[in-house]
Amino acid sequence: MEINGVVIEDTFAEAFPIWVSRILVTAATEKLAKIAATEATGFGCSVIMCPAEAGIEKYVPPTETPDGRPGYIIQICHPKKSELEHQMLERIGQCVLTAPTTAAFDAMGDEAEEQLKVGFKLKFFGDGYEKKDKVGDKTVYKIPIMSGEFITESKFGIKKGVAGGNFFILAENQTSALVAAEAAIDAINSVDGVITPFPGGIVASGSKVGASNPKYKFMTATTNHKMCPTLKGVVEDSEVPEDVNGIYEIVIDGVSEEAVKEAMKVGILAATKVPGVKKITAGNYGGKLGKYQIKLHDLFE
Amino acid sequence: MEINGVVIEDTFAEAFPIWVSRILVTAATEKLAKIAATEATGFGCSVIMCPAEAGIEKYVPPTETPDGRPGYIIQICHPKKSELEHQMLERIGQCVLTAPTTAAFDAMGDEAEEQLKVGFKLKFFGDGYEKKDKVGDKTVYKIPIMSGEFITESKFGIKKGVAGGNFFILAENQTSALVAAEAAIDAINSVDGVITPFPGGIVASGSKVGASNPKYKFMTATTNHKMCPTLKGVVEDSEVPEDVNGIYEIVIDGVSEEAVKEAMKVGILAATKVPGVKKITAGNYGGKLGKYQIKLHDLFE
Amino acid sequence: MEINGVVIEDTFAEAFPIWVSRILVTAATEKLAKIAATEATGFGCSVIMCPAEAGIEKYVPPTETPDGRPGYIIQICHPKKSELEHQMLERIGQCVLTAPTTAAFDAMGDEAEEQLKVGFKLKFFGDGYEKKDKVGDKTVYKIPIMSGEFITESKFGIKKGVAGGNFFILAENQTSALVAAEAAIDAINSVDGVITPFPGGIVASGSKVGASNPKYKFMTATTNHKMCPTLKGVVEDSEVPEDVNGIYEIVIDGVSEEAVKEAMKVGILAATKVPGVKKITAGNYGGKLGKYQIKLHDLFE
Amino acid sequence: MEINGVVIEDTFAEAFPIWVSRILVTAATEKLAKIAATEATGFGCSVIMCPAEAGIEKYVPPTETPDGRPGYIIQICHPKKSELEHQMLERIGQCVLTAPTTAAFDAMGDEAEEQLKVGFKLKFFGDGYEKKDKVGDKTVYKIPIMSGEFITESKFGIKKGVAGGNFFILAENQTSALVAAEAAIDAINSVDGVITPFPGGIVASGSKVGASNPKYKFMTATTNHKMCPTLKGVVEDSEVPEDVNGIYEIVIDGVSEEAVKEAMKVGILAATKVPGVKKITAGNYGGKLGKYQIKLHDLFE
Repeated sequence: MEINGVVIEDTFAEAFPIWVSRILVTAATEKLAKIAATEATGFGCSVIMCPAEAGIEKYVPPTETPDGRPGYIIQICHPKKSELEHQMLERIGQCVLTAPTTAAFDAMGDEAEEQLKVGFKLKFFGDGYEKKDKVGDKTVYKIPIMSGEFITESKFGIKKGVAGGNFFILAENQTSALVAAEAAIDAINSVDGVITPFPGGIVASGSKVGASNPKYKFMTATTNHKMCPTLKGVVEDSEVPEDVNGIYEIVIDGVSEEAVKEAMKVGILAATKVPGVKKITAGNYGGKLGKYQIKLHDLFE
Repeated sequence: MEINGVVIEDTFAEAFPIWVSRILVTAATEKLAKIAATEATGFGCSVIMCPAEAGIEKYVPPTETPDGRPGYIIQICHPKKSELEHQMLERIGQCVLTAPTTAAFDAMGDEAEEQLKVGFKLKFFGDGYEKKDKVGDKTVYKIPIMSGEFITESKFGIKKGVAGGNFFILAENQTSALVAAEAAIDAINSVDGVITPFPGGIVASGSKVGASNPKYKFMTATTNHKMCPTLKGVVEDSEVPEDVNGIYEIVIDGVSEEAVKEAMKVGILAATKVPGVKKITAGNYGGKLGKYQIKLHDLFE
Repeated sequence: MEINGVVIEDTFAEAFPIWVSRILVTAATEKLAKIAATEATGFGCSVIMCPAEAGIEKYVPPTETPDGRPGYIIQICHPKKSELEHQMLERIGQCVLTAPTTAAFDAMGDEAEEQLKVGFKLKFFGDGYEKKDKVGDKTVYKIPIMSGEFITESKFGIKKGVAGGNFFILAENQTSALVAAEAAIDAINSVDGVITPFPGGIVASGSKVGASNPKYKFMTATTNHKMCPTLKGVVEDSEVPEDVNGIYEIVIDGVSEEAVKEAMKVGILAATKVPGVKKITAGNYGGKLGKYQIKLHDLFE
Repeated sequence: MEINGVVIEDTFAEAFPIWVSRILVTAATEKLAKIAATEATGFGCSVIMCPAEAGIEKYVPPTETPDGRPGYIIQICHPKKSELEHQMLERIGQCVLTAPTTAAFDAMGDEAEEQLKVGFKLKFFGDGYEKKDKVGDKTVYKIPIMSGEFITESKFGIKKGVAGGNFFILAENQTSALVAAEAAIDAINSVDGVITPFPGGIVASGSKVGASNPKYKFMTATTNHKMCPTLKGVVEDSEVPEDVNGIYEIVIDGVSEEAVKEAMKVGILAATKVPGVKKITAGNYGGKLGKYQIKLHDLFE
C-alpha cells in the first residue's frame, strides 16, 4: 500500500491495556493552565523507567469548562490501578495544587469504569478548613491556600485504555523524519482521547527486549539495533532500507482502541505529506505480548 | 526596611543542603532542546512528593556549547546521592535520550565535588554498538538509535548545593501577587546556578509540618493556614495582613548559597516593582531544621 | 446589572463597518504556520496609524484544511476595499510566500460578498514558471520558489464586517485588569469569525478625538484623560471610579455583528471571574460616528 | 572550502546601507515585553513591499535594563531617514504604547550618529498631562494612559547600518535546509546588533530584479528561477546542484558590517552541522548594486 507515494508496510502495532485517568486542569488564563498541565505530565514517557505515562490531551476553551475558565485535559496512565492513584495524588497534589489559580476536574465522565477518591484524599491538605461545595453538578472541595483556594473535584473516573499504539516514520534523512514526526503530532493533537507521552510526542530511540551482546545480559532493554541507520552496514540483521537514514517513532496512549486507531491514521497521513519520507511501519512483538494488534492497512480501508 | 514602598520583613529563609547535578542538553534547534529539557525536569517540584527537584536553569547559545548546538542547562537535585543518580539515569535515559537530536553534557565542571558515571551506565543501552569518543576534551559515548546517535558525556559532576531558598510576595489581591511572582521569576532566570522547581517557578500553596486538626493527625503536611487569605477572619493565628488578599511563594534551589542569595535578591527587587505588592517575607522553621539562614535584610546591604 | 459581582454599565459599544478578508495559512507544521501568520498580521492594530487591522483568528487542525496540513486563519481588514487588496498582496506576498513551507487559501467561503484576485496577481512572481492547478475544488497557483513551491488560491473572498467592537475592564489595580483582559482574550479566542488586533488582544491606552489642550490642537487623537487612573485627582471630568486603579480595553473586529457580539459576551463573562474587577463598560461616541451600537445589557438577555 | 563536510562557495554577499534604530521595549513580565516587541516588528520583512525592516534583536534581563524590568531590544530599519522616523512613531505609538505595562528606551546609546525626537513627538498624545522625568540618566516622558503610564525616552539614536547580509543553505531536501536554517537562526540570535527580519528569520523565496518572461515585464521582481529546485530540469540556467532539492536563505540586517559578518559566520557554522546540507552560498548582484561585499571565505580566516 502507498499513500502520497510513501510505502505503508503490511504490519501491525502491538498495544497493551493500561489504566487511564483524564483530568481537566483549569486556571485564570490559558498560559497558567498550560504551565500546570506541563509540570504535572513531565517525566512521564514510559513506565519502563518513568513513574507514569502522562501527557496533555487537548485545550478546552473557557466556554466549555465547568468553571468558565480555560483549561487543558491531561491524561495520567499506569498499568496498575494502585500506582495510578498514587501518581494522580502526587502529580495533582504537587504540580497542580501548587500552581497559580488552578482547579482540577474529572474529564472521564460517563466513560469511567471506576472512580478514584483522589480529590477526597487531597482535601486533607486543607487541615479541616476545606469546604465541600458544588461547581455545576460536580462535587468539589475548596482548599484554602496562600493564593486563595484550590478547587478539586472529589472523584476522578478511570478506565482501561490502550498504551503503546505506534508507528515508525522512515525517511531519507533525519530532518525529513523529524519534520514528518512533528507534522504527525500536530495532526494527532486534533484527536480526542489520546496523548503522545514522549518528549514533543516523538521517540528518537527504539528498544528491544534484552540485549544481543552477551556481556550486556543484565540489561532488560537495549537499542533496537535493526532499526539504527548508523548500523546499516554493521549489523547483519539491519532492517533499515538502503535509502533511509533517519527514523522516528510516534507512541500513542488513549482511552480506547478506536481513539488510538484514529490517532495513528491521521498521524500517518500527515507524515506522508512531508518530502523525503519513504516508508511507514509499526512496532510489534510478533503478537506475543500485547492484547491489541492494530494493522496499518486496516486504518485506511 | 522598605524597597520601592514595599515592606521587607526582618526575617530569614531557612534552607537545606541538597545534592545538585547540572546537565547541558543540546539539540539541533533551540526548540528541540527545550522540549527535552522540559520533559526531563517535569514532575520535579519538591521531594516531599516528587521523585526529584528539577528545573531548567538557563539557555546556552550554540556559540558556547561543546557541540556548537543550542542547549539548556537543567538541574536535577535530591537530598540522597544514590537517589540523585537513579533520577539522573531515568530522566536522561527516558526524557533526553528518547528526544529528537539531543546530546547530554556535564555542566558542573570544576565545581563538582564528586563524579557520577551516569553516561557510562547509559551507554549499555547501545548493546555494544556504542563508541567511546571525544567532543573537545570531553569523553563521550555515541549510542546508535533510530534517529542517528545519542551522545552523552561519560561522567556528570555533582555537588552539595542549597534547596529551599524562598520568599513570599504578599499583595492586595491575587493578581498583583501573581504578576509580581512572574516578574520575580523573570529576574531570577538571569541568575546563573539556580532553578525554581515549582510550576512556572511559582508556589501557590504553602504548607506546615503536620496538621492542627486533630482528626488529620495522619497528615505529614497540611496547608499553612496562617498564610491563607481566605482564613483571615476564620483562624485566630492568621498572619495575613489586613490589606493582603493574595500570596505567592518563590522557591529556589541552587549550586551554592551565594547563587540562591543572588536569586532571592533580584527576585525580591523585581517583585517590589509591581503595583499592589505590600510586603515581602520568607519561610523558616525558627532555624531548627535547616542548615542555612538567609536574612532578607542582609541581601540588600 | 451585575455579573459575578461586577457592575455591567448600561451603555453601548459603537462600532464601524470594515472590509474583512479571511485567509487560511497552512504549513508543514503548526509552528511554521504560526510564524507566517504572526508576521503577516503584525503592525496591524488600528488603521489610525497602522496600514491595516490584522490578527490571527484561530488554529485549524490538519484534518480540516484543504491540503491536510495545520494552519491558522488570519483576518486582514481595512475600511477601503482598494487598500485592503493592497495590504493582502503585500502581507501575503512578503510575509507568507517568503515563509517556510506555507500555502494560502481563502477562508471566507460562501460568506464572501466580493472576490479579490490576490492569488492571481501574486502568481506573476512565478515569472511564467507558475502552474494553475486544483487543491480539492479550489483553483490555486503553484509558484516555484527556492524551498519548493508556494501554493496560493487564486481568489480571496471579502465581506463587509464590523470593526471596533469593544469593552473596558475596570479593576482595583493594574494587574487585576490585566489578568482579566488576558482571560477575556482566552475566551474570545474560542469564538469563530473575530480577531482582537491589538498586541496580545489588549489595549492599554484609550484615545479621544482631538485634544483638550489648546496647545495640542494639531493632534487628531490624544489620550482619553477621563479614563486615566493617574489623573483621577487631576482632571475634573474623570470617569474613573474611586476604587479603580487599572483599566484595559478589548477591541474586536469580526466578519459580522453577531460574531463581534458573541466575542464581547464571552470576553466580558471571563473578565468578571477575575478577582479585583469592579466594572465593565464600553466605548462610544454618543452614537454619532458608528453604524453599530452594541448594548452591553443586551448581550446577557 | 569545506566546513563539516559542506562546501562553502567562493562568493560574496552584497549588502546595502540602511538607517537603523535600536529600541528597548520593557514590560512587567518577559511575556508582555515579547508581545509588544512582536507586534511592533511584524509586517517588516523587506522594504521592497513592507513599510520597514524590523525584528527582535535580543532579550535583556531585568537586571540590565534602565527600569529593572525585562525587555526586548528591537530594530526598526529603513533606507530613508524620514521614513524611519515615521515608522518609529507609528510602530512605537500603535504597537508599544498600546501594549500592557510597556516602556520604550533608546538602545543605540553612544553608537548613534543622529538623534530622532520620537519620544518627544509621542508625548503629545498625553494632551498636556504628560510629565518630563528621569529614569536613571535618561530623559523620559510619562504619558497617562488607561492602564497607568506609558514611559518613553525622549530621543532615540539612529545610525547607518547594513541591510541584506545573507547566505543560502542548499540541502538534499527541503526539511534539511529548513532545520539547518532554524539552527542558523538560533546561532545568529546570540549575536548582538543584528536582526533577521523575515518570518522566523528564514526566507523561502529568493527573487531576481525584473522578469525574464517577456509577458511579465511589468514586474519589478520575480522568483529567482535559477535557484528553484523544481525548475532544475526545466530552465537552462539552473544553478541548483544535482543533489540539492531544498534551499533557504538567511537575510541579516545589523548596526554594522562587523555585526552582520559575525552573524553570517555563526549562522553558516550552525547550518553545516545539520545532516543533509550540501552547500552554502550567498546572493549578490555582481557587486554592481551594494556598498558592502562580504566574502564567505573571509569569514572563516
